[in-house]
Amino acid sequence: MTEVQKINAESLKLKTYAGEPYLLTPGPLTTSLATKEAMLRDWGSWDADFNKATAHIRSSLLEMAGADSDTYVCVPMQGSGTFSVEASLATAIDVKGKALLLMNGAYGKRAALTLDYLKRDYIVLDKGDYLPPSPEEVDEILTQNADVTDVFLVHCETSSGILNPLKEISNVVKKHGKGLIVDAMSSFGGVPLTVSEVPFDVMVSSANKCIEGVPGFGFVIIKKTLLESSKGRSHSLSLDLYEQWKHMEKTGQWRFTPPTHTVIAFHEALKQHAEEGGVAGRHSRYSRNRDVLVSGMRALGFETLLDDVWLSPIITTFLSPDHENFEFKKFYDELKKRNFIIYPGKLTEVESFRMGCIGQIDEYVVLDLIKAVEESLAAMSVDGV
Amino acid sequence: MTEVQKINAESLKLKTYAGEPYLLTPGPLTTSLATKEAMLRDWGSWDADFNKATAHIRSSLLEMAGADSDTYVCVPMQGSGTFSVEASLATAIDVKGKALLLMNGAYGKRAALTLDYLKRDYIVLDKGDYLPPSPEEVDEILTQNADVTDVFLVHCETSSGILNPLKEISNVVKKHGKGLIVDAMSSFGGVPLTVSEVPFDVMVSSANKCIEGVPGFGFVIIKKTLLESSKGRSHSLSLDLYEQWKHMEKTGQWRFTPPTHTVIAFHEALKQHAEEGGVAGRHSRYSRNRDVLVSGMRALGFETLLDDVWLSPIITTFLSPDHENFEFKKFYDELKKRNFIIYPGKLTEVESFRMGCIGQIDEYVVLDLIKAVEESLAAMSVDGV
Repeated sequence: MTEVQKINAESLKLKTYAGEPYLLTPGPLTTSLATKEAMLRDWGSWDADFNKATAHIRSSLLEMAGADSDTYVCVPMQGSGTFSVEASLATAIDVKGKALLLMNGAYGKRAALTLDYLKRDYIVLDKGDYLPPSPEEVDEILTQNADVTDVFLVHCETSSGILNPLKEISNVVKKHGKGLIVDAMSSFGGVPLTVSEVPFDVMVSSANKCIEGVPGFGFVIIKKTLLESSKGRSHSLSLDLYEQWKHMEKTGQWRFTPPTHTVIAFHEALKQHAEEGGVAGRHSRYSRNRDVLVSGMRALGFETLLDDVWLSPIITTFLSPDHENFEFKKFYDELKKRNFIIYPGKLTEVESFRMGCIGQIDEYVVLDLIKAVEESLAAMSVDGV
Repeated sequence: MTEVQKINAESLKLKTYAGEPYLLTPGPLTTSLATKEAMLRDWGSWDADFNKATAHIRSSLLEMAGADSDTYVCVPMQGSGTFSVEASLATAIDVKGKALLLMNGAYGKRAALTLDYLKRDYIVLDKGDYLPPSPEEVDEILTQNADVTDVFLVHCETSSGILNPLKEISNVVKKHGKGLIVDAMSSFGGVPLTVSEVPFDVMVSSANKCIEGVPGFGFVIIKKTLLESSKGRSHSLSLDLYEQWKHMEKTGQWRFTPPTHTVIAFHEALKQHAEEGGVAGRHSRYSRNRDVLVSGMRALGFETLLDDVWLSPIITTFLSPDHENFEFKKFYDELKKRNFIIYPGKLTEVESFRMGCIGQIDEYVVLDLIKAVEESLAAMSVDGV
């Protein structure tokens, strides 16, 4: 551990092990030791104590979304976040429905691929690598395509790091009386998102993002009437959200074996989330991380892909410097030697890389990262960015 | 901890925490502390070190099945074991195919339900709660139903605890030239099962069974030619086994976020599996557990559902005693107070309960269990079983 890491470890009470790299990625991310320690025991998936943890998780997530338990339910689903998105799309969109997918990156594209598997009709608004869809564009498309039943959009598209204008678009969607499906995978818990501001029908997220659990399951917050009407609609036994819900309501148990340790880690992570001041507290730390990251990287000469107004507190895309000695693979390895794991870019047209602001890191860790970037550039003989 | 548990903890080097109950269930089960401790760090799912662990797991599992890597591949899949079974059925059975499902419990029935979702044609041989399908019956059905393309059976049906005659049936299936899909969820790694003895086309199992990992993913060992021919067949983006395989072969990574901690725990569990002498070593310990369990329980007056010849070393079903004071819920709670979690029965016609023989337990733990059963009966005023 460097001196700054040590100070930080104390500042956050991280007690991370020396030598374990920070994951500056959009999840899996660096979690607290207490969260991981919660996995040091085994739980029977049938046992009442475990069921209590599941029930507590479900009600806490509803509360975090400001969702009334008479109107909404929370249904967790095994697998990665994509499994939960697929389960949600299969549940929310009627077999005779038609979706409008707002795309500006990999996760919008993945929704289209999912609907290809599901044999659901859809149209798209594809803004390319990083431009935000505008409320006006959505308004126009919905006006011209009255047969659209549901609109899907990604809150924070981590492909670029953009925070899409969710609230403004949701107003337009609701003005047209369409269903609203929000992929808030990488933002929920770290960026304010409540049903009073964004009246979604379905919202999907995952354990290993802003609530800082470990990966293994996702969860869906969905209108109860919509879920009830979806009985028999699922294409998949395992991903049948309706049956998962019915089984949980009846028995308190997951329909099929849950990732017990991951669930208990998430239960612990939720406690820490509350202790940090909930969504507001976490949003404030992540925003500080991003501000320190962006100003530090800019001071070294790096450019962000996006203008400040679109930068999320989740992950930031930097353009790769146009220097003959700069090579992403080398840069990655140099940073890894210095205990930081960063993320490759996902843009189709320009060279880039990404650095995450979420997980158990704070501005002191970010300052240490900036120092490590400086050292890495020197090691690569990149003398000016 | 009782005195016997302490001795046992040393005998197995378990170092379990005092107060943590033993899970006498068919998984999730009691895992070693070392396996759980492997989860005390975070891993980037994109990072080379993590990919190495995935590659090692895949090749170790092939080796455990005696499967040649030119002919077979191993593909892990996120979610519970059911997710892997569903992915396998969707992959192995052509949309115009027809399956014969051999049923004698909940997992055979679940396969039928899965095929209902998948809209695949099938016929069944349903032997009820616990009788084994015989090779002769299978031979006759296949003779009379030439259009059957694939046969599915469960190796150890934990509903009753029966170990089905897999080898004998596989000979018949292969004589007829049909595809063979084996659900070895609860047996693989603890009961010998190799392709030279049982020439399966597909075999499915899960992390949290006899290899003693924690739950979060399953895995499929499948003939490479079959997998290659299944391109485009999957009904589900998330459960597309072919695409998961192609992505892993190309990048070393899982197609969507893996349950990183679970994967690393399994990596550690595999090491311990090898140290115990592989499948043979584990089979021998589990068999001893079962023998001590069955003789101890019989000495107390309990009856097993099955004749000795059908008893698996995985889990045993006992008939609930016909005593007015015996009530499963009470019995469960009394045993839980004494640090043992048992499993309810799954028979449709008689009252029963189940006790598992797998996980980090040995005959000393089982002896302690027998003592706890005796005490629990006394506490319930059941004076003779």
